[in-house]
Amino acid sequence: MACTSGAAAATSSSFSSSSLSQLQLQSHFHGQQSGLASSGTHAESLRTLTMRVNGHCCSSGGRGGGFGLGRRRAFVVTCKVAPVKKTVVIGLAADSGCGKSTFMRRLTSIFGGAAKPPRGGNPDSNTLISDTTTVICLDDYHSLDRYGRKEKAVTALDPRANNFDLMYEQVKALKEGKSVEKPIYNHVSGLLDPPETILPPKILVIEGLHPMYDERVRSLLDFSIYLDISDDVKFAWKIQRDMAERGHSLESIKASIRARKPDFDAYIDPQKQYADAVIQVLPTQLIPDDNEGKVLRVRMVMKEGVKYFEPVYLFDEGSTINWIPCGRKLTCSYPGIKFFYGPDTYYGNEVSVLEMDGQFDKLDELIYVESHLSNISTRFYGEITQQMLKHGDFPGSNNGTGLFQTIAGLKIRNVYERILADERSVLNRAKI
Amino acid sequence: MACTSGAAAATSSSFSSSSLSQLQLQSHFHGQQSGLASSGTHAESLRTLTMRVNGHCCSSGGRGGGFGLGRRRAFVVTCKVAPVKKTVVIGLAADSGCGKSTFMRRLTSIFGGAAKPPRGGNPDSNTLISDTTTVICLDDYHSLDRYGRKEKAVTALDPRANNFDLMYEQVKALKEGKSVEKPIYNHVSGLLDPPETILPPKILVIEGLHPMYDERVRSLLDFSIYLDISDDVKFAWKIQRDMAERGHSLESIKASIRARKPDFDAYIDPQKQYADAVIQVLPTQLIPDDNEGKVLRVRMVMKEGVKYFEPVYLFDEGSTINWIPCGRKLTCSYPGIKFFYGPDTYYGNEVSVLEMDGQFDKLDELIYVESHLSNISTRFYGEITQQMLKHGDFPGSNNGTGLFQTIAGLKIRNVYERILADERSVLNRAKI
Repeated sequence: MACTSGAAAATSSSFSSSSLSQLQLQSHFHGQQSGLASSGTHAESLRTLTMRVNGHCCSSGGRGGGFGLGRRRAFVVTCKVAPVKKTVVIGLAADSGCGKSTFMRRLTSIFGGAAKPPRGGNPDSNTLISDTTTVICLDDYHSLDRYGRKEKAVTALDPRANNFDLMYEQVKALKEGKSVEKPIYNHVSGLLDPPETILPPKILVIEGLHPMYDERVRSLLDFSIYLDISDDVKFAWKIQRDMAERGHSLESIKASIRARKPDFDAYIDPQKQYADAVIQVLPTQLIPDDNEGKVLRVRMVMKEGVKYFEPVYLFDEGSTINWIPCGRKLTCSYPGIKFFYGPDTYYGNEVSVLEMDGQFDKLDELIYVESHLSNISTRFYGEITQQMLKHGDFPGSNNGTGLFQTIAGLKIRNVYERILADERSVLNRAKI
Repeated sequence: MACTSGAAAATSSSFSSSSLSQLQLQSHFHGQQSGLASSGTHAESLRTLTMRVNGHCCSSGGRGGGFGLGRRRAFVVTCKVAPVKKTVVIGLAADSGCGKSTFMRRLTSIFGGAAKPPRGGNPDSNTLISDTTTVICLDDYHSLDRYGRKEKAVTALDPRANNFDLMYEQVKALKEGKSVEKPIYNHVSGLLDPPETILPPKILVIEGLHPMYDERVRSLLDFSIYLDISDDVKFAWKIQRDMAERGHSLESIKASIRARKPDFDAYIDPQKQYADAVIQVLPTQLIPDDNEGKVLRVRMVMKEGVKYFEPVYLFDEGSTINWIPCGRKLTCSYPGIKFFYGPDTYYGNEVSVLEMDGQFDKLDELIYVESHLSNISTRFYGEITQQMLKHGDFPGSNNGTGLFQTIAGLKIRNVYERILADERSVLNRAKI
């Protein structure tokens, strides 16, 4: 479907392509010029991009494009921007039941539009598609279904239960702008369902147990995050979900955690050394001997020297700070809030660590905190607070999990925009 | 001595008196109009004040006036400013050998000009006079000389060895712009020498053991500071001075400290509850079990709600912060530097505490720290660092004692300027 926009509702975005402004050209988008598409429909592939005359460029295609921010009527000219060939690939590693889906909802919200399963497809599909982002679940690359795993006595965590060759091949194809026929692991039946077509999105998020396990897949990632939930918190969460909500016994929960642990430690945990950002969720230190898992201490460990990614900092970059914002200007209820920021090393890499212990009582506290954070890649003052408020009902919206997931989403948006800007500038230079 | 300046070297100062600019008037200064002077010479009393046309006003009298900062040639008009009647009185309490004289040298340096004993007077005078400041030592109000104290078995710390009636009378007179005949306690002979004339200065500092002991004297203070040296540090310093430099024995030093302690605890220490700022000097916490007293942890406890005085803060006013500036941008040698800032209570009063543990290796560290402090009442970026560098040879220039003494000096200057500005504005309003 090719769309042409004249004067249209333009969505502002920060891509800089001033050298092209006021040109009126037609363009193939997302690598379709090179004929790389291997399969699938390409409704989105040919589009006309609209550009505001102030040099800021935005896409306005079949889905309305852009990030849904600052939508307004503006004088626009249609133009051909340099074709962007790459799908930006983000890896998100975490155990099941660790808040990946909440994280994904926060992420797609930042990019605009709600995340939905593919239209008219398998109702048990694990894929989520939003305006710019497609999230695929790596469970879909299980080579053994539930019965196969039982038979061979391997867990889903075991690499032998997963097809890394296919995972690599398909992520690579999507990154190159080619559609793929991805299998579906049906979590309800435990069986492998017939494949679904995945079109190359602007941003592909691969989430699951092994996004950084296979060296080849890892090399495709433009940015990677590891959600690291401590055993104590994982246990408290599982009790909450499996015992309170699903009626499992405490003993069976303990047994299931124990059973998973050796494979988790062997195959999942080691991936965190490769992550650009690790979000650690730990019990609070504000309440002595707390093991309820309700108040959390959340740390974001951010690798230094990663292209397109500058770690967030508090007050003063590179020094070590403990900050209790609750005081004269901000009163917080027990047990209060405490932040930490400082340099550290993590698996031999230089990192910056930002930590929040405790939880927010109300909005004031978050905007107060946001105003003291730097390098957060927001587009306007208060964007983090706005996002957190928008999803106040999501789990973790009052603590560091929600805050750091939101920040991670903003950083991913920033990585994406900078990769695109670089790509365009290279292509534009090649034309001149 | 009356002096009139036309176009002259003007010293910029922050007094605002725009309503008077470009007027040319003659004025009596420092309360001389009201004929309050009781005795003494008044060479400084009648002066013409010069004012820069941009509305900033400065005095340019017999001693060259001002604070010696930013001296430059400027177009000036002579003008009559509202006569300022008050001498601003600052109290500084501390035990002997606790760095009062260094503090005074730092203070007078901030106000401009070196501090000297009164010209042509008793060579054993304890008084120090600089351009704007006169520092009198409260030992001069001893009612008992060394022999009298021995006879009656009282220490100099005992109120019975001091004449608070005379102290009050004379500080009150000076505050009202009247000269006084102040006794001199001769520290060399241990006797009371014939009195010396003290003219009412712009700023009178009364320093010694009891500036806040007597309620009447206390009520005269516009700002008060208590230098609180912990016993461990006092002991280390006394060993350094009395053993290494004066050849006293360790046992005699211990005995002298023990002998003073009961009276110190009874009469000196309780004054700190009245101080607007307390500078506490403690052993470092950066070196476990350190008792050398070389590396210091210095805290400035600043009372909230004091007129003309806003406590200094680090990063974020009213919250609690631990800051280790040494890291990626600033490398420090062992044991490093650590700052603390936060609200607290002190003798039932709300206070803000700023703490520095450790010492500076070099200039970079101080300017780096200065740039993160707020409410420091500097006139230009880097003034603290400039002052500390200027007196790099003074004791404590590389640690919190020098830093907080310098900051206290800047705060005193600020208190003085604001009292004057208020006074002028009241007098100007009365005229209109």
